[in-house]
Amino acid sequence: MLRSAPAQNQGLLSLKQGEAVLIVAASTIDSNLFYASSFLAGDPITYLQIGSKKMLLLPELELGRGREEASVDEVHSLLPWDQKIRKEKGRAPKLSEIQQVFLKEHNIERLIVPQNFPIGQADPLRDAGFEILVRKEPFFTDRAIKTDQEIENVARTQAITVEAMHHAIQLIAKASIQDDLLFLNGTPLLAEDVRLAIHRYLFDRGYHAENTIVAAGDQACDPHNRGSGHLPAHKPIVIDIFPRSLSTRYWGDMTRTILKGEASDEIISIYNDVLEAQKIALSHLKAGVDGSEVHGKVKEYFTSQGRITQERNGKMEGFFHSTGHGLGLDIHEHPKIGRARSPLEAGNTVTSEPGLYYPGIGGVRLEDTVLITEGGHRNLTDYPNELIV
Amino acid sequence: MLRSAPAQNQGLLSLKQGEAVLIVAASTIDSNLFYASSFLAGDPITYLQIGSKKMLLLPELELGRGREEASVDEVHSLLPWDQKIRKEKGRAPKLSEIQQVFLKEHNIERLIVPQNFPIGQADPLRDAGFEILVRKEPFFTDRAIKTDQEIENVARTQAITVEAMHHAIQLIAKASIQDDLLFLNGTPLLAEDVRLAIHRYLFDRGYHAENTIVAAGDQACDPHNRGSGHLPAHKPIVIDIFPRSLSTRYWGDMTRTILKGEASDEIISIYNDVLEAQKIALSHLKAGVDGSEVHGKVKEYFTSQGRITQERNGKMEGFFHSTGHGLGLDIHEHPKIGRARSPLEAGNTVTSEPGLYYPGIGGVRLEDTVLITEGGHRNLTDYPNELIV
Repeated sequence: MLRSAPAQNQGLLSLKQGEAVLIVAASTIDSNLFYASSFLAGDPITYLQIGSKKMLLLPELELGRGREEASVDEVHSLLPWDQKIRKEKGRAPKLSEIQQVFLKEHNIERLIVPQNFPIGQADPLRDAGFEILVRKEPFFTDRAIKTDQEIENVARTQAITVEAMHHAIQLIAKASIQDDLLFLNGTPLLAEDVRLAIHRYLFDRGYHAENTIVAAGDQACDPHNRGSGHLPAHKPIVIDIFPRSLSTRYWGDMTRTILKGEASDEIISIYNDVLEAQKIALSHLKAGVDGSEVHGKVKEYFTSQGRITQERNGKMEGFFHSTGHGLGLDIHEHPKIGRARSPLEAGNTVTSEPGLYYPGIGGVRLEDTVLITEGGHRNLTDYPNELIV
Repeated sequence: MLRSAPAQNQGLLSLKQGEAVLIVAASTIDSNLFYASSFLAGDPITYLQIGSKKMLLLPELELGRGREEASVDEVHSLLPWDQKIRKEKGRAPKLSEIQQVFLKEHNIERLIVPQNFPIGQADPLRDAGFEILVRKEPFFTDRAIKTDQEIENVARTQAITVEAMHHAIQLIAKASIQDDLLFLNGTPLLAEDVRLAIHRYLFDRGYHAENTIVAAGDQACDPHNRGSGHLPAHKPIVIDIFPRSLSTRYWGDMTRTILKGEASDEIISIYNDVLEAQKIALSHLKAGVDGSEVHGKVKEYFTSQGRITQERNGKMEGFFHSTGHGLGLDIHEHPKIGRARSPLEAGNTVTSEPGLYYPGIGGVRLEDTVLITEGGHRNLTDYPNELIV
């Protein structure tokens, strides 16, 4: 499979004399490391930037692959350092000891690390006299501003997500109703069946989704409940699909809420309020605006419609999550569209996903992924919002 | 899908007055948190043990689901603490501020955290006067000693892994040879085809594998190279399959090396040495032995056969990875069977995977997953080792 090859200078930070960037992580789960190195490793490896050079310190096991695949300037083997310290101390060194010797030989005194840097790595470095500066997310400022290739990656995953959504909605649209429940070809249509059909559609095209939501009625009132069991007629079904490309590793994300049968006036009113909130959110999404302002507009609109957010009988109701989030190599990354301040810039790829949830009635969420531009946004989600199918 | 429900007291640590366990992580990637809470969340959540009570602090978004699914004693909403601090300070509090207020109200002074605890969370807690004790892995001692249910989970994943391996080997066995390359039904048989067939087999049964290795010739000499392109005849093909169950979340892991066509004497000799090394490793695996002793026996045997491990022309050759690793909720977890000391105990589930790699000739690795018992081990990998297919 093709793997996107980020530019050699992707993730370079501007450093002062004596400073180095240090990341110690498995790049299968740490997207900063993968962003900077283009190297996929399932166990923790050591990434450094010294001066304007990006480096990896790798165990023998990863050496050959690192030299071929990583988009860094230097790949060093841990082995000679291991042997050197082993000779001096008469025992196998810890990774942290090797890092220290390597850093001292490069006259490094100050380490710039991400917020998720492990304390088990940081404390020994501090004890050895290194100063540690924790740099806030986005650790690599340029990671939030997508390149054309990255926009293409997100757009491609989103296009397949749209296809998978259509495939799922068609299944539900074709269902028949019996005793207020959905049946397909004479057998009960389960949330699990629809989820599996979505996952299979994605698998066949090189995408992986794991926790796709197909949740109806009260299940959908917990926004992260994946949903289970026989799907009901006449109740809103929330379908939230967020797959990752197995080749580019970029995510897509979209949600539609549909209903087979007759919608009550109450459901229609909730749906229309969410649809209007989505229009309001999208109309405010552009470079220069702060994410918290967009979230504020959505909250304001819901309040103006009498939609109160509160806990009742141990369950939340109303609108109680963020309006959206950046996505790229992570499904949730900067910028955020929620309570905290987070400026939007051209090149951000973000979701917009207002929702309303009322236990006993049902949940509605509508979500598009868009690209922020100078003048507004480009919607990467080419699919209509229609409640009744 | 069914999700295994660990016992309510899974992951309980013995604490002194004023101490608490603290984990802040996304349980989709942090298995300690999932082990203790049975709660799957894709964004960082706060886990605490205070006294003998396990607790989660959750955002409104996760509250309803947490109360239903988590195997903890108390689920608290962040909301009232958020509102309380917001009233006092006139701004939205950070997660760390809420944690501090919660901990102080419970008279906690000392926090026990895992080695991967994020420094961006630890520093503010230290600044606020909390003492932080970093507890080494295995953070939860009992995580390395599998319960009957956990052994069943690993064994089940491993049984499906064996089936997927058989499926892959059958494909290669059925291939025909033309110009020293493999063809199936008249078309070139690619490493990618075999990998996709494995992934599809696993997908259809509720298992996910992503970086399955099907690597021949020189590709296999980088042990983590996934392999690509037209598969050759007369050369060893390393197949390493490590899927995760999407229901139980437990991993399996196995490797076979096969060859279609004629094996050279050199390849046969390498294969037989690895096979013998595997027998030696397995014969030493039992409770009370240290992993490093088993690794030492394998190294010793290879050395006795004249198998030197060294870097040559920028490539490693010989045996240059660990003999094995624990597996369970993580694909790599305690105990380790490598250079560092790591005692084996009854109830550990570990791999044994010696290998030899010679660029220009090829790589051979054989890997079983076994359960460590008092008197030896129970092999969970019911599949023969045969080079020629």
